[in-house]
Amino acid sequence: MSELLSGKLVAESIKEETVRAVEELKKRGVEPKLKIIRVGENPSDLSYERGALKRMAGCDIKTEVLELDQGISQDDFIAELELVNKDDSVHGILIFRPLPKHIDENVVKYVVAPEKDVDCFSPINVAKVMEGDRSGFAPCTPSAVMEILGHYNIDLNGANTVVLGRSMVVGKPVSMLLLKENATVTICHSKTKDLSKVAAAADILIVGIGRAKMVNSQYVKEGAIVLDVGINVDENGKLCGDVDFEDCKNKAGMITPVPGGVGSVTTSVLAKHVIKACKLQIG
Amino acid sequence: MSELLSGKLVAESIKEETVRAVEELKKRGVEPKLKIIRVGENPSDLSYERGALKRMAGCDIKTEVLELDQGISQDDFIAELELVNKDDSVHGILIFRPLPKHIDENVVKYVVAPEKDVDCFSPINVAKVMEGDRSGFAPCTPSAVMEILGHYNIDLNGANTVVLGRSMVVGKPVSMLLLKENATVTICHSKTKDLSKVAAAADILIVGIGRAKMVNSQYVKEGAIVLDVGINVDENGKLCGDVDFEDCKNKAGMITPVPGGVGSVTTSVLAKHVIKACKLQIG
Repeated sequence: MSELLSGKLVAESIKEETVRAVEELKKRGVEPKLKIIRVGENPSDLSYERGALKRMAGCDIKTEVLELDQGISQDDFIAELELVNKDDSVHGILIFRPLPKHIDENVVKYVVAPEKDVDCFSPINVAKVMEGDRSGFAPCTPSAVMEILGHYNIDLNGANTVVLGRSMVVGKPVSMLLLKENATVTICHSKTKDLSKVAAAADILIVGIGRAKMVNSQYVKEGAIVLDVGINVDENGKLCGDVDFEDCKNKAGMITPVPGGVGSVTTSVLAKHVIKACKLQIG
Repeated sequence: MSELLSGKLVAESIKEETVRAVEELKKRGVEPKLKIIRVGENPSDLSYERGALKRMAGCDIKTEVLELDQGISQDDFIAELELVNKDDSVHGILIFRPLPKHIDENVVKYVVAPEKDVDCFSPINVAKVMEGDRSGFAPCTPSAVMEILGHYNIDLNGANTVVLGRSMVVGKPVSMLLLKENATVTICHSKTKDLSKVAAAADILIVGIGRAKMVNSQYVKEGAIVLDVGINVDENGKLCGDVDFEDCKNKAGMITPVPGGVGSVTTSVLAKHVIKACKLQIG
């Protein structure tokens, strides 16, 4: 059995750091606050929301949820968002996506205040991720990957890193974050030829493709470090990742489980981003 | 000798396409115009400007140069830029960079109108490049690389592509453009281990590292396609690329020369971007 990369341990460590930061802020009379904006009642949004509320409470960060009706017009949604942008008591904004189809994300993303945009919806933050400008906010999931790599002191300098997936929520931003840490990064996707062979060359393999247990031990080099971003439900109704954990756990040198891996760290990153946003805004 | 990827031929082809587009626009009463903003008299800016003016003239695109004094203050520069943003007769804006140190590019980049920003200075266009949103403008040099690949019908689908360099003007944006075309992309840089070995695995090798003739035949797989973005001056004062052309020309399957390669296409891309900007603005 390889070493388990425990998301829970990383989350605990970020929590401690965050609690201290909140204490400092409160001493200065500032109460950090996250506003979650949710349209409708999508079960996965509600599930994430519960986790986020619990985490923020644990970190002593105030959270408010703005629940909007599924049928809200784009104009009304934007008006609501602008009120939150302007509300000085709110430091971080998390908008659940995808939004209903009648609300154009390509319009809304330009409205959210970049300095409060703690999950990288605004193009200003997307550009900062690409530029390697740490003053912005990367999406929480790739940031969680980086937190785990950092917590376990995994040396990224010149490391041969392979990313499976090229989405804007995982693959592309995590590639940019890895590059910033001097990793060599190969970005793979559904059209990649000999995918398992490319993956099996990696020292560090980051998997975010959204297909349950697709990555088996053939994709993994002996001793490789494997981070699984996937959250799926398997044929028995149990949570599983994009990596076939049972098949890979002995071959990998270090591996994240699902659940208890990357997903456990995302709300901690969210808390950390709220603190960062708060500090930026109070100057 | 491998096949030469002639930038000049590609430029000629883009020019023909652009001339036709300008004719169409003029029939509609629109005269496409590029505004070049240059601060001071940097020789490399002046050299590029001469090339750009010649190319725009050849494409029948009007060009004006706004020459600003090297000592212009940041506020005055921004005021000038805002006037150009607002000038309806101007469709494309090219600002020579780097700007003098007392003008903060991280401020100015937010000022340039994204819809006129034909060389990807604005974060809005940076984000679009990362998102694969073709409504934006990629920087001219990586776009020139894509034009050459397209002109020679090089199949990028699943191709093992290696990019040497991770700059915001070449490496990162070209990687995003290649991903959009379904290439598998490995991004390498100065910290990459066994760089020549990684490069020599590539079907397609894009080199933008800014070191004269660094890439020799050890970096090139037999039959690989090599695009050299570098423009340097060698020990004899002659223009040369980042690739040692003489050493690689027989091993590569196809290769760009320097001069006459990627660099020959950038001003044609600039012309194409001005036309695209013009069409976007007139609706």
